[in-house]
Amino acid sequence: MANILSGKKGIIFGALDNQSIAWKVAERCVEEGAQIVLTNAPVALRMGEVNALAEKCKAPLIAADATSLEDLENLFQKSMEHFGGKVDFVLHSIGMSVNVRKGKAYTDLNYDWMQKTFDVSAISFHKMMHAIWKLDAINEWGSILALSYIAAQRVFPDYSEMAESKALLESFARSFGYHFGTAKKVRVNTISQSPTMTTAGQGVKGFTDFFGYADKMSPLGNAPALDCANYCVALFSDLTRYVTMQNLYHDGGFSTMGMNPALVESK
Amino acid sequence: MANILSGKKGIIFGALDNQSIAWKVAERCVEEGAQIVLTNAPVALRMGEVNALAEKCKAPLIAADATSLEDLENLFQKSMEHFGGKVDFVLHSIGMSVNVRKGKAYTDLNYDWMQKTFDVSAISFHKMMHAIWKLDAINEWGSILALSYIAAQRVFPDYSEMAESKALLESFARSFGYHFGTAKKVRVNTISQSPTMTTAGQGVKGFTDFFGYADKMSPLGNAPALDCANYCVALFSDLTRYVTMQNLYHDGGFSTMGMNPALVESK
Amino acid sequence: MANILSGKKGIIFGALDNQSIAWKVAERCVEEGAQIVLTNAPVALRMGEVNALAEKCKAPLIAADATSLEDLENLFQKSMEHFGGKVDFVLHSIGMSVNVRKGKAYTDLNYDWMQKTFDVSAISFHKMMHAIWKLDAINEWGSILALSYIAAQRVFPDYSEMAESKALLESFARSFGYHFGTAKKVRVNTISQSPTMTTAGQGVKGFTDFFGYADKMSPLGNAPALDCANYCVALFSDLTRYVTMQNLYHDGGFSTMGMNPALVESK
Amino acid sequence: MANILSGKKGIIFGALDNQSIAWKVAERCVEEGAQIVLTNAPVALRMGEVNALAEKCKAPLIAADATSLEDLENLFQKSMEHFGGKVDFVLHSIGMSVNVRKGKAYTDLNYDWMQKTFDVSAISFHKMMHAIWKLDAINEWGSILALSYIAAQRVFPDYSEMAESKALLESFARSFGYHFGTAKKVRVNTISQSPTMTTAGQGVKGFTDFFGYADKMSPLGNAPALDCANYCVALFSDLTRYVTMQNLYHDGGFSTMGMNPALVESK
Repeated sequence: MANILSGKKGIIFGALDNQSIAWKVAERCVEEGAQIVLTNAPVALRMGEVNALAEKCKAPLIAADATSLEDLENLFQKSMEHFGGKVDFVLHSIGMSVNVRKGKAYTDLNYDWMQKTFDVSAISFHKMMHAIWKLDAINEWGSILALSYIAAQRVFPDYSEMAESKALLESFARSFGYHFGTAKKVRVNTISQSPTMTTAGQGVKGFTDFFGYADKMSPLGNAPALDCANYCVALFSDLTRYVTMQNLYHDGGFSTMGMNPALVESK
Repeated sequence: MANILSGKKGIIFGALDNQSIAWKVAERCVEEGAQIVLTNAPVALRMGEVNALAEKCKAPLIAADATSLEDLENLFQKSMEHFGGKVDFVLHSIGMSVNVRKGKAYTDLNYDWMQKTFDVSAISFHKMMHAIWKLDAINEWGSILALSYIAAQRVFPDYSEMAESKALLESFARSFGYHFGTAKKVRVNTISQSPTMTTAGQGVKGFTDFFGYADKMSPLGNAPALDCANYCVALFSDLTRYVTMQNLYHDGGFSTMGMNPALVESK
Repeated sequence: MANILSGKKGIIFGALDNQSIAWKVAERCVEEGAQIVLTNAPVALRMGEVNALAEKCKAPLIAADATSLEDLENLFQKSMEHFGGKVDFVLHSIGMSVNVRKGKAYTDLNYDWMQKTFDVSAISFHKMMHAIWKLDAINEWGSILALSYIAAQRVFPDYSEMAESKALLESFARSFGYHFGTAKKVRVNTISQSPTMTTAGQGVKGFTDFFGYADKMSPLGNAPALDCANYCVALFSDLTRYVTMQNLYHDGGFSTMGMNPALVESK
Repeated sequence: MANILSGKKGIIFGALDNQSIAWKVAERCVEEGAQIVLTNAPVALRMGEVNALAEKCKAPLIAADATSLEDLENLFQKSMEHFGGKVDFVLHSIGMSVNVRKGKAYTDLNYDWMQKTFDVSAISFHKMMHAIWKLDAINEWGSILALSYIAAQRVFPDYSEMAESKALLESFARSFGYHFGTAKKVRVNTISQSPTMTTAGQGVKGFTDFFGYADKMSPLGNAPALDCANYCVALFSDLTRYVTMQNLYHDGGFSTMGMNPALVESK
């Protein structure tokens, strides 16, 4: 607790329950001196657990369907009214695959479902930035961040169309990052996080194998959710002002391993 | 002319006129001993120039809307009937951006148009592979190829949402490449080609600047369309059987340059 | 100043004068609550400017030739005696090219000089980690960091053999990072920094063109030395415990740009 | 056999016995119509097996220590005399690690041995290009190629200092590739090949585990030596004129896999 976000204001998308990375980001930001607004889809808010977080963080809870540009504009408008000014940081932590949930094979995807997956998991990030851009809702040297996964670069067959969602998400970060950097001195990045034991993560088929494999492959083991929250804090802070348009692996070294003897020996 | 595709059968998507890369690929494949089928959208075929190519290549011309799985299944069915067997190679050379055409800024994209762009330029590639998979339409050691651009990795502001289209396209190549490799011994790759003076390329705003910049940055200059066709031939041939799930730069060295003195001196 | 390195102990290699990145890292670490030891080659220490920094930082100044494993072992031994325990972080900021200094063309390198360049600029990093490993001189969750440049991935002709030095340096970070991660829970990374107006940087031929080009290409402009120091602080802090074996661009977005209209327009 | 190298002249470094990739490259080049010169270190030539290859290929055998610029100049001089003109392609397939052979741990490297490793495995590639450059020994649109391994990007602990050798080798390809491309229209690339059952490969500790792991991870399995030779042929041919300064994975898809269920299931 060093107060490194003192005076900063942010919006956190995607806290669902206390296993969520976004939940821990919210807690850590407030511990570090930030004020925040929490947001999630109306249906997620009705499940109610986020109320406890909002209370703890003294944060308003504003419903927004992240696939609706109108809802997002309303969210940023309301947040600026609440803060009495622009925001300094935003976290996008939203992802969901319809084809995975419904058990549809990658070689036989349903394209309407894929479209829904892209809308929720990736295009929502462009829309979020679109709303910020339109309302001029972020301060100079602000920081926009989304959570991604290495399936954007390498194949994890069970991850299915989420690979494409993350590839899209990271491309939006780069493309919009150019505009935000040039015009507003704002940075846009993605964190490529280890598999994490969240409610969302556990919904993926074969998640436990996947988790254990990555844990053994990574010299430091899989990065826990709390450490991911700490990394988000670093990326919202003034310590990282010139880091932009990057995809940053937070994975205990997984991405750089070719073969770990620990995996081979354990067979 | 070394007959290196002798006995092979392939399908070429996207030849429009004699400036098209796909047009030159068709010509080169036939020169190297392959038999081919040409396909394009019904509207493109009505423009008629492709008839001359079909005649020259002794190739049937089969209309298919690449956004329609049904049309694609029909195309592969008909092609197998024509060839009396499965195909050995397929080229996807299709791309079009509605937001770019309509001059809509990247920071203010129309999402319906973006969806159309993704459907035509990227999701069509998944559908094409979906149809091949379903009909078991490709021989062992076959080769599936799509044309991409380095905007999938780096920002070229005028390229707009095509950056995301190409990121999607390359991700589909990796993901489906795993399935095709494992089950069918078939490889899937993308070629990331220099900016090329095609009818499609010239439609992009600022294309001439873009072309000239890339040409100066690249130690060998921009790769011409005919050389791209030659590279496609190499990737369809048996010389490259174990190259799969790769994005291959065919760009005269552009992708690896940090700064070219030729650009700085010319200012 | 948030005291985020409170209680931590570190060693800073390579501060030469107040333009050095390492100089600013030393100042920032002390401001954030760390205790440090400063080190440089005997000849650099004799130039005397570093004494002022040592005084300001209340830091001992220990001479070590970074190409001598013996000197490095002595340095870590002495530092542990001074701190009364192991260190928590180390910065390697050392680089020098003999062929560049002597104006020898890349196509006609002197290999003895190249060897000297590698010894000073890259192999010194392996030796530094070798000494730490041998003496068990770093605490769990410690952080080892070196400064690199994007010439390790892309060509900047005037940078000459330093490209290879940086490629070596980054490879040492990955390889040794596996061992440190697995056995000691210690992370090893490199920061790939924008061209910086240091005494060393200015020695490179064509540096001003290079600097200006990178500045225009980067949406946020080149990252200043002070911001680089801030990023080092973040990477020494507990906010980044699971980031390892990475090369992290701190470059205002340079690495992700394909073409910046600002450059083309300015011609 | 399509005669795709008809009329071309090349030099092949590193054929040792009939398990060598270079051996198969020599055979395939000759089958495709090329004339070649074979070269290896004097000690390797004394072992004598290469004589059989030279006879079969009707190729002169010229001894050259690849760490000696003088020997390399002599080799290119003699080769041009033999061919009555410049060469069109060159293969560098040389690698050897003293620390690995002597069982020295990566965390305790002997730096003199490491230096020897770099000289033989990587700096020899710069020297080879240095000799070509100085003697103007390669034709326009010629192709220079070296064999590399993915340890240049990712960690395989048993591969030790060869990771750094390959990182160096690939960097030399990029840097010299700029000069050759700009001045001579010549391309320079590296192929990053699957682990291969050669005499050299088998010398690496844990090679069998390593080979089996890579084979299972790769959707097409490990790429065999003969296919690597075919890929070299493609890269020497006129089908790939604009591919330069690239590291090209020839690995059955290994480099793009994150997790292969085949590996997890087999535990």
